[in-house]
Amino acid sequence: MSFNHTVRVYWEDTDAGGIVFYANYLKYFERARTEWLRSLGIGQHKLKEDLGAMFVVSETHVKYLMPAVLDDVLEIETVITHRGKSSLSLDQKAYRKQTTKADHLGRLDNYNSERSEIGVAKQDQPASQLLCSATIRIGWINVQTGRPARIPSFIQEIL
Amino acid sequence: MSFNHTVRVYWEDTDAGGIVFYANYLKYFERARTEWLRSLGIGQHKLKEDLGAMFVVSETHVKYLMPAVLDDVLEIETVITHRGKSSLSLDQKAYRKQTTKADHLGRLDNYNSERSEIGVAKQDQPASQLLCSATIRIGWINVQTGRPARIPSFIQEIL
Amino acid sequence: MSFNHTVRVYWEDTDAGGIVFYANYLKYFERARTEWLRSLGIGQHKLKEDLGAMFVVSETHVKYLMPAVLDDVLEIETVITHRGKSSLSLDQKAYRKQTTKADHLGRLDNYNSERSEIGVAKQDQPASQLLCSATIRIGWINVQTGRPARIPSFIQEIL
Amino acid sequence: MSFNHTVRVYWEDTDAGGIVFYANYLKYFERARTEWLRSLGIGQHKLKEDLGAMFVVSETHVKYLMPAVLDDVLEIETVITHRGKSSLSLDQKAYRKQTTKADHLGRLDNYNSERSEIGVAKQDQPASQLLCSATIRIGWINVQTGRPARIPSFIQEIL
Repeated sequence: MSFNHTVRVYWEDTDAGGIVFYANYLKYFERARTEWLRSLGIGQHKLKEDLGAMFVVSETHVKYLMPAVLDDVLEIETVITHRGKSSLSLDQKAYRKQTTKADHLGRLDNYNSERSEIGVAKQDQPASQLLCSATIRIGWINVQTGRPARIPSFIQEIL
Repeated sequence: MSFNHTVRVYWEDTDAGGIVFYANYLKYFERARTEWLRSLGIGQHKLKEDLGAMFVVSETHVKYLMPAVLDDVLEIETVITHRGKSSLSLDQKAYRKQTTKADHLGRLDNYNSERSEIGVAKQDQPASQLLCSATIRIGWINVQTGRPARIPSFIQEIL
Repeated sequence: MSFNHTVRVYWEDTDAGGIVFYANYLKYFERARTEWLRSLGIGQHKLKEDLGAMFVVSETHVKYLMPAVLDDVLEIETVITHRGKSSLSLDQKAYRKQTTKADHLGRLDNYNSERSEIGVAKQDQPASQLLCSATIRIGWINVQTGRPARIPSFIQEIL
Repeated sequence: MSFNHTVRVYWEDTDAGGIVFYANYLKYFERARTEWLRSLGIGQHKLKEDLGAMFVVSETHVKYLMPAVLDDVLEIETVITHRGKSSLSLDQKAYRKQTTKADHLGRLDNYNSERSEIGVAKQDQPASQLLCSATIRIGWINVQTGRPARIPSFIQEIL
């Protein structure tokens, strides 16, 4: 079962090559993991305050297949592939979505075809293209000591 | 008339002080301006390709009133205050929203009260607090020369 | 008396407009303030751990005069203009330096003129150009409460 | 033969967990690659303008072993491990350096031991600790088409 999270490419994400800077996919993947945890009722800020512990990334393996550009809408797909006692493994993929009205995050109510010729790109690529594919390993650590710890059982059960 | 855009505070936005790093409000404000332009049918990526011109920020004046923290939902309010021939002025404000189910960007369908005790913070602050207030001046430049230019009339009309 | 700190423009700093993204000057200014404090023997990480307090930015006023591009070397000049009991004001300016061997941060030992034609830009602009000018106001806060506090006297004396 | 580049951890690099955000090591690695190329006389900005081509990252594999914190000085070691016709492979490692006067990037002229007690951390860890280890694959692409291309022979020779 996968969790999908949609992000928009803004100026801050791009570099002078005209494409999304390679480190920024890790930002998108982190946002998607946070929203996935939130969708399960797990809020990281409060966990850190209540338990003095947090998830940290221990390993990433990322393949950059195609570049994303300004204004692209990316769908980040997150699938859990391994649940250990003190770590998790996830597959995360970034797809460029076919842009339609509905993809504009609900903020294009007054969008109309007369205006589209001015500057909103006509998208005629196929439904979605895989741009970036990652395997991410996450551990659970005690914030004070920085040491790995067992993921609390109530979190294990939710996952 | 104001345009509102909602952003979530992620790990990437915070710093070791536990709060949103001051430069990152400028990222939120830029996203809000982009979505405001998009809501008017103006896509900056295509404009740059078609016209060889783009908006650039020429001046910012930002007051940081209260810090935002991880997991906060911020509403960015954008109001145009001056329309010149080659520049615009905007007021942009970041409010912390009272977090409710509806504010979770539609991704908390399976959120429930049993789980909320685990890690999703109970928010009992008032409806919204002003965290950061900015005046932003934007110019229109030719990409090749880097020089200021007149904002095209069809864009002036839309604005 | 001014404090000067040199930064290099990397891919991470630029955006698809081919220039340094406007928020990133605030990163340069922060680095310069940190190095200025360090030059006075003030380390912020340890201060935060020892005193539970830290400097935070309360107001910024930035004028963007000329864009910086990839590979530029910028000199950030920091001058303190006001010392209050719980706040400081600083002027910070970013200049593009005339690039010479010496400016390459000491990492161009094997740089030579035969190679320079391949890809290292010949810089023939005047000695330095003012790109970005800022007024920054900084307060001192208690990390736990987030409230403003008096800057400790031993820091006041150093400043 | 390895190339070493030193970076400082600033507020911008850290997150609310008190450590360097995982994506930011990719920024450090990119800076180190840029300085390594520059040390060979290869400037990427001018290459892009002259040849319409640039290096892009096609794959990263990163292991996060120990966290870096604010004010740390990191040494990034870069070693080329494979030279192909249209791609390169590199090993990049981030070490925390034992902080001494000399490590402070030459900006601590007026640093002294009386002041060190105020806020500059006493570092008594061993000479250097490996924090983060990466394998990076880089390709050469045509900027217009985005397609892989052969690395020009004069660059191959330099590398």
